[in-house]
Amino acid sequence: MMKKSFPLSRVYSLLEPGPVVMVTTSRKGKANIMTMSWHTMMEFEPPMVGCVISNRNYTFNILKATKECVINIPSEELAKKVVSCGNTSGRSIDKFKTFSLTPAKATYVKAPLIAECYANLECKVVDTSMATKYNFFILEVIKAWINLSGKHPRTIHHLSKGSFMVAGRTIRLPSKIK
Amino acid sequence: MMKKSFPLSRVYSLLEPGPVVMVTTSRKGKANIMTMSWHTMMEFEPPMVGCVISNRNYTFNILKATKECVINIPSEELAKKVVSCGNTSGRSIDKFKTFSLTPAKATYVKAPLIAECYANLECKVVDTSMATKYNFFILEVIKAWINLSGKHPRTIHHLSKGSFMVAGRTIRLPSKIK
Repeated sequence: MMKKSFPLSRVYSLLEPGPVVMVTTSRKGKANIMTMSWHTMMEFEPPMVGCVISNRNYTFNILKATKECVINIPSEELAKKVVSCGNTSGRSIDKFKTFSLTPAKATYVKAPLIAECYANLECKVVDTSMATKYNFFILEVIKAWINLSGKHPRTIHHLSKGSFMVAGRTIRLPSKIK
Repeated sequence: MMKKSFPLSRVYSLLEPGPVVMVTTSRKGKANIMTMSWHTMMEFEPPMVGCVISNRNYTFNILKATKECVINIPSEELAKKVVSCGNTSGRSIDKFKTFSLTPAKATYVKAPLIAECYANLECKVVDTSMATKYNFFILEVIKAWINLSGKHPRTIHHLSKGSFMVAGRTIRLPSKIK
């Protein structure tokens, strides 16, 4: 794995198109993975991300307790593993082992990066005031990594039960919008 | 325009993939359009949507005052108009007139539907407690419309300044995830 540092000011461009992501956490040396689609950018820099993680998910309490996670962005090649991680719970299995995913050491958080994902965002939880009412967490991305071998990654975007849109071509239009 | 009612329980499938949307509002008989990419689903049913609308935007105060809007989902054919709406402010122009978009009457809110968009979600603002700190509004979708002529719409997904990913093909995988 040859990950490169990615500028925090450009993190929004990874999440704004709405890809399915995999959230990793770690507590007492035990790492877990959760598949997530309900997230939004909230600020450009420092990059802030809002996300909904159900209190029925194993990750909910870990995130509340550890205040750390990594947002990993998979591309199409990982689609099956993304779904498998979404269909199972870390309460009963070690998802890294079961689905042959590789944990890699993060710099600032204990949660591991998923080596197979093309981008990894190390995050601190900065606001849990809406966690009880809406399962909503606000994260700050403190370090971003990218591992791109040239072409644009085919991110996957969840439509509904088992159905995903795969990122298509890119169009460019004159725009003043960041 | 022959819009059909769309089940509220399936609204998440329209927004979860992360398309750029156009938010319409209306105050004192004056309608406006804002381009938006920072949104997330927050609940399946009733469908709740969280979105970030900057306090620098003309829409911010209108939304706070009227507590109503429509989320309109454009497909690729409207990309130029989507960017134009993002590059201009309703403070100085009438975007419906300037960009030749057609306002259509909503059922439950004063904000108009954009007739050219393939889906329209009538929304009430249900929580503004994070509007001051994070420009974050929580909306409930109270009525949904769809206008699909068969094939899957090519939604557009904002990558960065003037660069958009166009929705590609759909893949299906066995999944228990809603």
